[in-house]
Amino acid sequence: MMKDIAGMIIPTYDDMLEAHARIAPHIHRTPVLTSSFFNDLTGAQLFFKCENFQKAGAFKVRGATNAVFGLSEEEAAKGVCTHSSGNHALSLSYAAGRRGIPCHVVMPRTAPTAKKEAVRGYGGTITECEPSTSSREAVFAEVQARTGGDFVHPYNDPRVIAGQGTCSAELMEQTDGLDMVIAPIGGGGMISGTCLTLSTLAPEVRIIAAEPEQADDACRSFRAGHIIADDAPETIADGLKVPLKELTWHFVSNHVTDILTASEEEIIAAMKLTWQRMKIVIEASCAVPLATILKNRDRFAGKRVGVIITGGNVDLDTLPWIR
Amino acid sequence: MMKDIAGMIIPTYDDMLEAHARIAPHIHRTPVLTSSFFNDLTGAQLFFKCENFQKAGAFKVRGATNAVFGLSEEEAAKGVCTHSSGNHALSLSYAAGRRGIPCHVVMPRTAPTAKKEAVRGYGGTITECEPSTSSREAVFAEVQARTGGDFVHPYNDPRVIAGQGTCSAELMEQTDGLDMVIAPIGGGGMISGTCLTLSTLAPEVRIIAAEPEQADDACRSFRAGHIIADDAPETIADGLKVPLKELTWHFVSNHVTDILTASEEEIIAAMKLTWQRMKIVIEASCAVPLATILKNRDRFAGKRVGVIITGGNVDLDTLPWIR
Repeated sequence: MMKDIAGMIIPTYDDMLEAHARIAPHIHRTPVLTSSFFNDLTGAQLFFKCENFQKAGAFKVRGATNAVFGLSEEEAAKGVCTHSSGNHALSLSYAAGRRGIPCHVVMPRTAPTAKKEAVRGYGGTITECEPSTSSREAVFAEVQARTGGDFVHPYNDPRVIAGQGTCSAELMEQTDGLDMVIAPIGGGGMISGTCLTLSTLAPEVRIIAAEPEQADDACRSFRAGHIIADDAPETIADGLKVPLKELTWHFVSNHVTDILTASEEEIIAAMKLTWQRMKIVIEASCAVPLATILKNRDRFAGKRVGVIITGGNVDLDTLPWIR
Repeated sequence: MMKDIAGMIIPTYDDMLEAHARIAPHIHRTPVLTSSFFNDLTGAQLFFKCENFQKAGAFKVRGATNAVFGLSEEEAAKGVCTHSSGNHALSLSYAAGRRGIPCHVVMPRTAPTAKKEAVRGYGGTITECEPSTSSREAVFAEVQARTGGDFVHPYNDPRVIAGQGTCSAELMEQTDGLDMVIAPIGGGGMISGTCLTLSTLAPEVRIIAAEPEQADDACRSFRAGHIIADDAPETIADGLKVPLKELTWHFVSNHVTDILTASEEEIIAAMKLTWQRMKIVIEASCAVPLATILKNRDRFAGKRVGVIITGGNVDLDTLPWIR
């Protein structure tokens, strides 16, 4: 079903539907929460799609599971591999574990111990690299050549984007119509999946991406009309440091209405307020959409807004508001 | 409907049903969450009734709302009053605010600023006392005499117990049969409501109370056959420091199967693990049941166990695992 456009394999709405059927036995249909406190505060009606309650603690498991369970028996026998220091590493390990196939992950030596333990807990095998692009690429090339595993990119992969698109399909089923959906943007996997699904299912819904000011490469790309990649942005929203790639740029440039940004301080305040008032543990990355809603109240007031809470894998020993 | 036994007004099952109809417009029917991680860890099937998502952040709003909305117009005009440094103060203020009547709360001068601000946010009026029983009683007597407000005790009140009983009524509807229900015990309001409801609705369900080792007065009372009250117990589970009173003792002594205890270290570990794996913010008090399940695995393995997560009002600036 995937369309080949300009040398890229673009996933279609049917790919998303297929992905949903494929991954349903392995993922949660996460709940949508509302908060009268945040509705009063923003003047909008917010519908929080809680992927922090997802298997492996993040939406990334949707795309990873779609890739893993879409492999033929022959392909699957060699396993999968990827590079990631975050939720994609956990998610791919989880999915591979469910299928009973090997999963090799290249992670920087400096990645948090908790993340490494979680990957191992799901049965993934870690090969460490230095925390630099050149080291990661060299080590990953070696691992891929040695294992022959299928490379599942964290976001620039049509199977992954089709998988992430299942999230907004559920969100639309769980709500009674929306005016907007807002999600954080890093590499653009979730936003691309959202575009893929909504452009067919509910093209009237505006899609807003939210990004840290300190890692605003997607916002600048959007304004410039071509991909701008930053070298090493620093932000508390550590899931959002990676740049757009050609596949996600395709969706962002065609379907996103706007990209809004928030400062580090605003992100941390929104994160803490969400823990306090909604009693849910969310990552800093997930607080970026709420932070941008709070500072652009006029854009959202009176609207029905789906907010994708992307994950809840937080190091509880070092919270950004406790110094 | 309430029965007068030995000079006490004992709430009945019908009172609980009436309470449920009365409070339904003002409270959340909170969700029941499950966790494959905790099921694997304990060998039991756990059903977490999430009162941390409740209005005002705790189950206490059930009893408080039942008391407030059960008042006649004439009684209501004078408002309500209570003494509490915790969730009952918030809950009564919330309920009184919904009905538009005054709420006076006596709180120790030393109570957390965040709690005081929350009470005021809901429209409650605070009168401060010194952090001692004698000061609290003197100040409260003055406030009650001055305002003429109806005294809603945090737990030793039949209207409050009938209200708390609505929680396990929902839990039974939301699950497909349970072998046990476990909840924390302090003054015994939640456990008494659970006894009230289950002794009629599902008398086969065993009711287990969970208590901090360092505030184990209910456990010692249960073994001794009469109320033992500690003077000033110290525990991280600050909602559980108060002693049983005659009404809650009636239910505990007649219907509770057992009272289990956990150490401070075990409580903190269970609390942190719940945040980590379930991505929900729970108070230390709510972690006591899980802590006792983890240390008494044999008692719970193979059983379907309802676990009441009583509240989520936590000071995020001082977490017990961050020193």
